[in-house]
Amino acid sequence: MRLSELAEQSGASIPTIKFYLREGLLPPGRPVSARQSEYDAAHLDRLRLVRALVDVGGLSLAAVRQVLVALEGPHGVDVAVAIAHGALSPQPATEGPYERAVAAVRRLGWQVDETSAAMARLEAALAAVEAVGLSRQQERVDTFGAAAMACAEFDVAGVTGAKARDPQAVVASVVLGTVLTEELLLALRLLAQSDAYRRRR
Amino acid sequence: MRLSELAEQSGASIPTIKFYLREGLLPPGRPVSARQSEYDAAHLDRLRLVRALVDVGGLSLAAVRQVLVALEGPHGVDVAVAIAHGALSPQPATEGPYERAVAAVRRLGWQVDETSAAMARLEAALAAVEAVGLSRQQERVDTFGAAAMACAEFDVAGVTGAKARDPQAVVASVVLGTVLTEELLLALRLLAQSDAYRRRR
Repeated sequence: MRLSELAEQSGASIPTIKFYLREGLLPPGRPVSARQSEYDAAHLDRLRLVRALVDVGGLSLAAVRQVLVALEGPHGVDVAVAIAHGALSPQPATEGPYERAVAAVRRLGWQVDETSAAMARLEAALAAVEAVGLSRQQERVDTFGAAAMACAEFDVAGVTGAKARDPQAVVASVVLGTVLTEELLLALRLLAQSDAYRRRR
Repeated sequence: MRLSELAEQSGASIPTIKFYLREGLLPPGRPVSARQSEYDAAHLDRLRLVRALVDVGGLSLAAVRQVLVALEGPHGVDVAVAIAHGALSPQPATEGPYERAVAAVRRLGWQVDETSAAMARLEAALAAVEAVGLSRQQERVDTFGAAAMACAEFDVAGVTGAKARDPQAVVASVVLGTVLTEELLLALRLLAQSDAYRRRR
């Protein structure tokens, strides 16, 4: 397909696609004349992944490049998902060990990388809750952990069939699923509070 | 107690307390001399509420004032909680009716104010998920709704005993509980995804 068709099918503008080509986030097309190149389905898939990472995930170009490089490696999907996940969490303000977070994930029986950016984020959240003296911290971790896992199982189950065999589609799904549905989860929680509060009166 | 003790016990600085006094967010103390006033436990409670709203909730002074005014009214707590909740959600970009959000909360059987800022937020989140074509939208609402309700039940159950009879403490708990534990929930979800993804391989 031509550049214009690639733009149409992906929803990205032509200047955006040209920018990604210049930055090497999208491989060059096959030249068919001095001024035109031909693009294929692989370009479309790659473009969808880059847009998911940049537009929805808010990843920096450097982080996108890391994800793309990881996809070429032997442990492609796993490493790429881990990098994308890491880039979705703000850079940790503190260095590990993340004692509260490690205790929490072990209590929940989860096996995770205990040095990741998500662990730093959990540590900061637990410390903040502790600082204002909200009670029942362990029960809170149990309740919220179970709720988070119910959502996560749903997210992961969504990557099935042909998609699960395409590393790019897996990474795009994880990022889209995580970022877009965070907002969904938070909005639902506010409304659930209203309903729970009303029923309790 | 003196201003310095009020600062010590609340953790707010003296300049901050003086600012709140000037802005009318904290009622004046009882004058004991030309240059000193005496403050009591009610001042401490009010100060804790204002700090929760401003520092943790990120509410504007105008929103804090609305919450405080509502607390004086006949339906004090309910209205104040609703205002605080509203102020925690970004101002809606769209006006209602929020069709997707209304369908979702009715499907979940929740009775909520269908014109609130939280509904606008839910509508935007549902529209964004729909736009990128993630499948199983209804099942997602069911799963995330159940998870959100589990957290909300925990939040609301935490406001018990003497606290439940103090309108200021109820509002402070709701705001602190919501904002601080949002981050906890999101961090847990990222980690739950890692664990779920690992188990699925």
